[in-house]
Amino acid sequence: MNAHDLIKEAIAEKGKFDSVYWIACGGSMIDLIPAHELLQREATTFTSYIYTAREFDIMRPRRLGEKSLVIACSHSGNTPEVVEGCEIALAAGATVIAQTDNAGSKIDSGKWTTWVYPWGEGVPQAEVPAGISLSLAAELLDQQEGYVDLADMYAGIAEMDKILPPAREKVNAELGDRFAKLCQEHEFFYILGSGPNFSQTYGFAICSLMEMQWQHCSYIHSAEYFHGPFEATQDGVFYFLQMGSSECRAMDERALAFLKTHTDTLMVLDAKEYGMEAVPASVRAYLDPVLFYAMNCELRAARGKVFDHDPDFRRYMGVVEY
Amino acid sequence: MNAHDLIKEAIAEKGKFDSVYWIACGGSMIDLIPAHELLQREATTFTSYIYTAREFDIMRPRRLGEKSLVIACSHSGNTPEVVEGCEIALAAGATVIAQTDNAGSKIDSGKWTTWVYPWGEGVPQAEVPAGISLSLAAELLDQQEGYVDLADMYAGIAEMDKILPPAREKVNAELGDRFAKLCQEHEFFYILGSGPNFSQTYGFAICSLMEMQWQHCSYIHSAEYFHGPFEATQDGVFYFLQMGSSECRAMDERALAFLKTHTDTLMVLDAKEYGMEAVPASVRAYLDPVLFYAMNCELRAARGKVFDHDPDFRRYMGVVEY
Repeated sequence: MNAHDLIKEAIAEKGKFDSVYWIACGGSMIDLIPAHELLQREATTFTSYIYTAREFDIMRPRRLGEKSLVIACSHSGNTPEVVEGCEIALAAGATVIAQTDNAGSKIDSGKWTTWVYPWGEGVPQAEVPAGISLSLAAELLDQQEGYVDLADMYAGIAEMDKILPPAREKVNAELGDRFAKLCQEHEFFYILGSGPNFSQTYGFAICSLMEMQWQHCSYIHSAEYFHGPFEATQDGVFYFLQMGSSECRAMDERALAFLKTHTDTLMVLDAKEYGMEAVPASVRAYLDPVLFYAMNCELRAARGKVFDHDPDFRRYMGVVEY
Repeated sequence: MNAHDLIKEAIAEKGKFDSVYWIACGGSMIDLIPAHELLQREATTFTSYIYTAREFDIMRPRRLGEKSLVIACSHSGNTPEVVEGCEIALAAGATVIAQTDNAGSKIDSGKWTTWVYPWGEGVPQAEVPAGISLSLAAELLDQQEGYVDLADMYAGIAEMDKILPPAREKVNAELGDRFAKLCQEHEFFYILGSGPNFSQTYGFAICSLMEMQWQHCSYIHSAEYFHGPFEATQDGVFYFLQMGSSECRAMDERALAFLKTHTDTLMVLDAKEYGMEAVPASVRAYLDPVLFYAMNCELRAARGKVFDHDPDFRRYMGVVEY
């Protein structure tokens, strides 16, 4: 399956879409956010909205209909809210594309197009939801309106496969031990980021830390930081800053300048020092999150070793009824 | 100034708008979110997006132009990012409506329409940004596409003035002391909410607690809770749940059922017990946040008394350079 043909066939069948809805939950939703943000910024003839799936089901947009493209993702393929969202979209006449790692799962029902993706070490970024979603968004934009940075996007996605292996080594060598130690010393801390990266600020908090490490934390947008949260900053309060490499970096730089002088407990992960400058500047804002996701995985693993807490262990998810 | 005439004049001058952008920062942005969500759900012929102002300035949407309506808010009237956002919008040919409490401030420059609102005890909800924004959104929807719940919206906004005084007394009598005590016992806690209320989940965290009380906390969407954050739940971890009174309540109820059996430290503020059932069901989702904002103010004041921390005191905001 490839994004170009999938979008081409969808447009051939329906004509141009007037709306795109991205629906998923938790980590899967996080992977869709940068693609949505690309459309929110660039699209002039259609809308793009993203929902945690249950809220899409409850707050169903009136525009949802035959001219809508609904792009869903459920890693397990069995997330009830996401399957329900696809059913609602189908009933409304929308075109549905569902992504899942699990062939034969509930979302792979044959009722709509299901893109089954591989997962795990060595899988190219073009073949997992973050890359697939960016390709779908870029193709939709290009085929409906034209998108001058389409080739840059594909080049950038491919470049990530070269950037990530040394970046993983570097973050482990330079930040892993200190991060784990800071977690030992702090029951709670703040993570900051901005722009499309904020998806992985949120993801670091709710997936890598709360879910996989039972580590309490909060996530703050670098620009919003100055409109409230910075009042809580002082020595002894731990801040982790995700510095982006794109035009959004200006927001992170402002936060950095303040944090440097108002807390003695700061850890900075600067995408510019992790190879992102090899990605075309035009699409870097949307690919930084791929780097940060990989870095989040390394840092949670480093913490897990020190705390003897396997990131794959769950006490509730898929274990108890809820 | 009134929303009906303002929107009527704007449409008379420009024709129908194809996009609405809400721009502000922190607490002012939070007040605009429910109005944006009304449009995201109901509008079929135009888009609505909301930005923290600096991100709007940096990630400027390509659609921004003569057919755009930009609704800004800066309580102080001097927030540089918001003033800059209005300038950008004006230069792009957009119609700009700015809300501020401060006549003669930088945003009240005469370059666009400025709605100067009163603030403080006794001011009707129709005259402050949350109410003004909902009226502007409802009028835009009605005058461009028709909105069957327009009268309900105005009735609901008016009803809030009756609901809030007894609700303030009730929250102080029933939750104030225990909330302050739980803050003394917990360096950190989680706040949950969903739907348009999530704006005030975020607001409780970043404005009332981080900014005004230096109280560490995090904000979690009730539906997202089950896709990661719930793994951090256990006895001794404090959760504050904002239960809505609208169709979004189903998400909060699911969180409640889990929290009741997985932590011994839970505080619930149920909008249904605070008078919200007097508001028409059709618009309750957008007015619950007005209740929660008022309750957040009471709870931070209750905490402030016990901690001897005046919610109006700032150590950085407007005090140091940043």
